[in-house]
Amino acid sequence: MAGLGAAAAGGAALVVRPGDPLPASFTSLGTGEATIGFHGPRQAGVTTEPPAHAAFVALTLNRGSDRDTLRRMLRLLTDDVARLTRGEPALGDTDAQLAVLPAALTVTFGFGPGLYQAAGLTSPVADLPGFSIDRLQDRWSGGDLLLQICADDALTVTHTQRMLIKDARPFAAVRWVQRGFRRSPGVHAAGFTQRNVFGQLDGTANPKDAAMETAVWAPDGSTTLVVRRIRTEIETWDLLSVADKEAAVGRRMDSGAPLTGTAEHDEPDFTAVDDTGLPVMPDFAHVTRAHMTDPRFKILRRPYNYDEAPDSAGRPDSGLIFASYQADIARQYLPIQRRLAEKDLLNEWTTPIGSAVFAIPPGCSEGGWIGERFLDS
Amino acid sequence: MAGLGAAAAGGAALVVRPGDPLPASFTSLGTGEATIGFHGPRQAGVTTEPPAHAAFVALTLNRGSDRDTLRRMLRLLTDDVARLTRGEPALGDTDAQLAVLPAALTVTFGFGPGLYQAAGLTSPVADLPGFSIDRLQDRWSGGDLLLQICADDALTVTHTQRMLIKDARPFAAVRWVQRGFRRSPGVHAAGFTQRNVFGQLDGTANPKDAAMETAVWAPDGSTTLVVRRIRTEIETWDLLSVADKEAAVGRRMDSGAPLTGTAEHDEPDFTAVDDTGLPVMPDFAHVTRAHMTDPRFKILRRPYNYDEAPDSAGRPDSGLIFASYQADIARQYLPIQRRLAEKDLLNEWTTPIGSAVFAIPPGCSEGGWIGERFLDS
Ligand code: HEM
Ligand code: HEM
Repeated sequence: MAGLGAAAAGGAALVVRPGDPLPASFTSLGTGEATIGFHGPRQAGVTTEPPAHAAFVALTLNRGSDRDTLRRMLRLLTDDVARLTRGEPALGDTDAQLAVLPAALTVTFGFGPGLYQAAGLTSPVADLPGFSIDRLQDRWSGGDLLLQICADDALTVTHTQRMLIKDARPFAAVRWVQRGFRRSPGVHAAGFTQRNVFGQLDGTANPKDAAMETAVWAPDGSTTLVVRRIRTEIETWDLLSVADKEAAVGRRMDSGAPLTGTAEHDEPDFTAVDDTGLPVMPDFAHVTRAHMTDPRFKILRRPYNYDEAPDSAGRPDSGLIFASYQADIARQYLPIQRRLAEKDLLNEWTTPIGSAVFAIPPGCSEGGWIGERFLDS
Repeated sequence: MAGLGAAAAGGAALVVRPGDPLPASFTSLGTGEATIGFHGPRQAGVTTEPPAHAAFVALTLNRGSDRDTLRRMLRLLTDDVARLTRGEPALGDTDAQLAVLPAALTVTFGFGPGLYQAAGLTSPVADLPGFSIDRLQDRWSGGDLLLQICADDALTVTHTQRMLIKDARPFAAVRWVQRGFRRSPGVHAAGFTQRNVFGQLDGTANPKDAAMETAVWAPDGSTTLVVRRIRTEIETWDLLSVADKEAAVGRRMDSGAPLTGTAEHDEPDFTAVDDTGLPVMPDFAHVTRAHMTDPRFKILRRPYNYDEAPDSAGRPDSGLIFASYQADIARQYLPIQRRLAEKDLLNEWTTPIGSAVFAIPPGCSEGGWIGERFLDS
């Protein structure tokens, strides 16, 4: 893993006694120097372990953008990202000192429908249809180009965001920026499930290994991303008893175990009934509604928490930057989203206020640039 | 330190070879479980090492607040903080799962002039006078009660903030909340100087050990806090050459060394002149203007970076939540601030947009509460 590699590279004189488990935060050793390779057939920042901080930056292309301006912009941004993810300043980096600690930085490029339109190409992605639960705001929706910037350090994210926005400026305006967080490095072991602002373990049933491969990647190394800004109505959520919170999701608040099991990674048993003959996993529970057995229909959730300033009455402005990766939005994301919009008790305490879709093109090799495969033709 | 204690308590099976330096991020081991003691003659969160995340929460007391309501509020909030800083849920904590990883949580109580007024007492602190450089906004200024919440994890800060605001709600409204960050745990070694959003090493000349004692603490265990929200004009700053950036501060961008030295902690020599007879440390440089030799006139800076969403043209909204602790604002802070307002080249690229002052009362012992010494009389 990135962290282990960095620790070794740093030459830290650590000895872990044979047979001992790795200390909880071992992967946080050398957090600052850790790098994640940028080049390759697939982009980083998708199936790589999500680090502590993220900025989702959506840009609107200037009117009159065409294949030529897109090429120039993407060459420039790709070059910046190749350098910054290695811990080197971007060309013309005006704050070079902030580039030297990449802290597992990844930048993932997403192309919205408007980018394909500007290039005179058919878009592989389209805005989601509206759902009855939606209360979407323009200020959190849409976007021609997305830069998903993730790192284990907030200052690294800030610097990267600034350099990329600066270099994108001749070509595009900032549409929205969403900053989010997960647990800090070292707070718990890598691979542990994070908690979200509701206090739930969030990520348990994500596909792993071969199932993740199938769910996420198209054969050409591309994938798609749905970003939904979902406000959590914590004030009313917190009026619920723990049992009611657990029924709404179908999992325990403390362990994350399904209501039919005892440990987090026990498989939920949707056929189990209680003494009164009712299903133990309620049919309105979020997990019951969202569950797909076949890996071809699963999605990879990679959400970040947000928490903006509360209002004067102290009501929080918190929620999830819900980010979902899947090979095919229509086949995988939409059926789940439809089932949830139709019936999911959790809807009572969550409100989608933003929505955007992006194609994630394949990665590129050294000297190449993101998007070259179809913009260069 | 907190981190080492937590690592030992966690029983991590690490062996560091004798004579080897501690690995850079050793203090991040067990980041989640690390605790900093709350009880004692002085409050925590002042001279304790600043962790990665902070929320500065300023409250306005309800009209008609008196000594009795203050007592009730402060008893309640003190009890919450005593528990949360130990990694236990607050009484009536509606998201108990979020309380178990304190991540070096501290909550520091500050009393503004309005709190003393409500209690019928003379305030030991008063709003700063206006300075010509100020562009203060009400939304970032003032406050009757401050809660400075710091931890190495953003979710811990979010949860703590929410619980405290909830319990303060019968007594006070939220005036402003400022969230800020420093480097994540493990990104560099404890004791290393952080960089700020300008890319500068920030904190080098802070008083340490005995000098810090003298500068910060009054004999009764109290101190004072000035919070200034200072916007950094990064766009114009980044038009400067490195040499010009260095002249504005009087220190090197890479090493943080004074212009008269080679290493970060070399003492600046304000008498040195160059070939042309000009002082090497320019007399308009930030450090030249801010420097005080006598520890009784120094201040302890404990700033956090902020970075809010840029505007559509990509102009950043970044800066410092500049937080300064000193035994006496009039004797220590004001002379420095006056000298800086009068002449400091850095003013060209920084704009104070918020200002607030707080007395930091002494700590309390187990079972006691913050403010008891004068509100109980
Ligand atoms: C604020 C909004 C949401 C919250 C708080 C939330 C929370 C949760 C929680 C706690 C779990 C159980 C643990 C886990 O497997 O991660 C879960 C599972 C899941 N959620 Fe959500 N979720 C939200 C929105 C969504 C949305 C918008 C979708 C997709 C449209 C979705 C799809 C899923 C899926 C597919 C699972 C796994 C189900 C399974 O196979 O067991 N969630 N979510
Ligand atoms: C955005 C605003 C500011 C920035 C970017 C900034 C930056 C810096 C930097 C880079 C240094 C040198 C390294 C160090 O010792 O930390 C420094 C030193 C210092 N600054 Fe600031 N500063 C700001 C505002 C202020 C304010 C408002 C005050 C007090 C009113 C202040 C007081 C000091 C002091 C006392 C020193 C140490 C001087 C010495 O003894 O060498 N600064 N600052």
